[in-house]
Amino acid sequence: MSTRVLRHIGELTTNDPTQGDQSAMGRILNAAMVLDEHEVLWTGPDAKAPAADEMIDVAHCAVVPGFVDSHTHLVFAGERSDEFEARMAGRPYDGGGILRTVASTRKASAEQLREATSKRSHELRLGGVTTLEVKSGYELTLDGEARLVGLAREVTAEVTFLGAHVVPEEFGHDREGYVQLVAGAMLEACTSEAKWADVFCDRGAFDVDEARLVLTSARRAGLGVRLHANQLADIGAISLGVELDAASVDHCTHVSDADLEALGASRTVATLLPGAEFSTRSPYPSARRFLDAGVCVALASDCNPGTSYVTSMGLVIALAVREMGMTPDEALYAATRGGAMALRRDDIGRLSPGSRADVVVLDAPRSAHLAYRPGAPLVRETLLSAP
Amino acid sequence: MSTRVLRHIGELTTNDPTQGDQSAMGRILNAAMVLDEHEVLWTGPDAKAPAADEMIDVAHCAVVPGFVDSHTHLVFAGERSDEFEARMAGRPYDGGGILRTVASTRKASAEQLREATSKRSHELRLGGVTTLEVKSGYELTLDGEARLVGLAREVTAEVTFLGAHVVPEEFGHDREGYVQLVAGAMLEACTSEAKWADVFCDRGAFDVDEARLVLTSARRAGLGVRLHANQLADIGAISLGVELDAASVDHCTHVSDADLEALGASRTVATLLPGAEFSTRSPYPSARRFLDAGVCVALASDCNPGTSYVTSMGLVIALAVREMGMTPDEALYAATRGGAMALRRDDIGRLSPGSRADVVVLDAPRSAHLAYRPGAPLVRETLLSAP
Repeated sequence: MSTRVLRHIGELTTNDPTQGDQSAMGRILNAAMVLDEHEVLWTGPDAKAPAADEMIDVAHCAVVPGFVDSHTHLVFAGERSDEFEARMAGRPYDGGGILRTVASTRKASAEQLREATSKRSHELRLGGVTTLEVKSGYELTLDGEARLVGLAREVTAEVTFLGAHVVPEEFGHDREGYVQLVAGAMLEACTSEAKWADVFCDRGAFDVDEARLVLTSARRAGLGVRLHANQLADIGAISLGVELDAASVDHCTHVSDADLEALGASRTVATLLPGAEFSTRSPYPSARRFLDAGVCVALASDCNPGTSYVTSMGLVIALAVREMGMTPDEALYAATRGGAMALRRDDIGRLSPGSRADVVVLDAPRSAHLAYRPGAPLVRETLLSAP
Repeated sequence: MSTRVLRHIGELTTNDPTQGDQSAMGRILNAAMVLDEHEVLWTGPDAKAPAADEMIDVAHCAVVPGFVDSHTHLVFAGERSDEFEARMAGRPYDGGGILRTVASTRKASAEQLREATSKRSHELRLGGVTTLEVKSGYELTLDGEARLVGLAREVTAEVTFLGAHVVPEEFGHDREGYVQLVAGAMLEACTSEAKWADVFCDRGAFDVDEARLVLTSARRAGLGVRLHANQLADIGAISLGVELDAASVDHCTHVSDADLEALGASRTVATLLPGAEFSTRSPYPSARRFLDAGVCVALASDCNPGTSYVTSMGLVIALAVREMGMTPDEALYAATRGGAMALRRDDIGRLSPGSRADVVVLDAPRSAHLAYRPGAPLVRETLLSAP
């Protein structure tokens, strides 16, 4: 097993409070780090750097843990820029556009979907994402959803079954029948490849009782649970998430004080998706409210063709700082360690002995540049641990 | 002279209303374009594409004119991310930070400044900028400003003398003396390399009378004029710009109806800089008000280390759509043809016979993706005409 030492790290963010300045960011200035193909072996001051088989001089750049994008809808065909244009000209978004993507995804071959997904996952990677979650949800048939979780499994282990994305047209007069299918045979067809189940629990999508039915079935089948909660309206989805010990409740655009209190007392992460508010011109939730209530916050891209065609975690961080009241450090933490917590992973989202060797070298002296230089190509190099 | 033909252009934006759909965007679907090293020779439907020495198949991508970034402060040393962090935590921006950059720029060697400027201009280029304006303004001494316009001239012909950026510390008790220096000997030392003069005409910077003095001297010396107008407060800078037939008034965060009427009746362009509002968390001006008043609008990056460390015109376009009420087409036009008008250039910002061969091939089927996919690396290739 060969080892590498990164030398002359201007600012190392470990997200490990036992390291460096002992803050939540565990920050070490003038640092070094030793890795092998799989994991971090050592971090500390550059002056004490041990020898290794290979030396990489990062020339005083900042180094951060690879981004964990814990919420994407990466497997789809087609695009909906015309819908985006209409919305920007003033028509409100009601979520109805998902069925357009369902129609184009159903028509696409596996090879077409594989190519499109791979292109988007490559874009995320270029922007420093080293772990990503990918949802199904654009076929909404038994075979189709099984196909999508299989395709998602080709790019990540964090695969989420989202049969309960919307009710497909053919079940327009039989919601209950569709929910039964999702919670029964469709779920069963997806459990071998999926690790998670998710429900779009919102106005115009699935209500709390429907979501509870699907997610409890999923839990019985051995999947972890997460949900789209209160993006469009407060329908009680966040408290359902806490009730079910969901790993994460996502969006949370509408949140009550009672929700915040319940979240703060739980281990459920609130995953904020500012790309969605940006792309739908909706009011941003205040991340400050969550942080002040002691809630663990994650940031993710929500990459999807309707409401957040975003593949840049750098932009997500910048938006969270500009629009949601986070500091650059809080946003970086949420995009790394927060994402890891939203996936209930302890081996990623940090850089300390035993964590995976998923590392981003920034073309900047401080990680605050991710928010200070929005849109800039700041990811100089991404090191990815061997599988 | 060898010729190239771009074939299979999914959507060609020419910004020439005599072409294609005869709209302001002059859009041609399924298009082709013939170029030589210097200029566009032909545009039209792909089915009628003439032969050329070389064929480039753009595989149904969208093609747009290269972006014209008509407002940058590219030549500086140092960074101010700590100031950005403080501001995001709630301290208001008063413009005082410029003097920090003056101090670090004065200390930097020509080689250091050359390298830093070249890195930033490379980032702009990667993002599709084919013409950029660069201002001085970070030395504020006779020799220093002459040095900066010389360095700017190494990366562009569109060089702007901005001695009237702020009053330097050594003239703290002699504003009038500094204005006389700028309008006299300092201007004289910069006229050989500069094409434009600019004044930061705003609260806390220079007032309208001071700006008039500097800009009328500059005009007598043969320079074109432009100005930073009403970013922080309405002090009458926009009407001064119209009075002086300035090529552009920039920022215009604060604008009255009378200003809009005057601009609409003039040939002065309003250059909006949403990166500055983003990075200072200030309210965005409404581009709609300008457009509805018949004002020609440009969009630019304002790249500078204090209030808009932005090098992505794609992000500028996305922000203008999300925050300023522009359609994706209006924003694209402003970032190309609008920028050209702000530099009083007719050879750039469009793609039609006789224009320069400055072309951006997007990794997208429609140019609306620039706003629909904020932060994505959409510039697939940039063709730049030979000097």
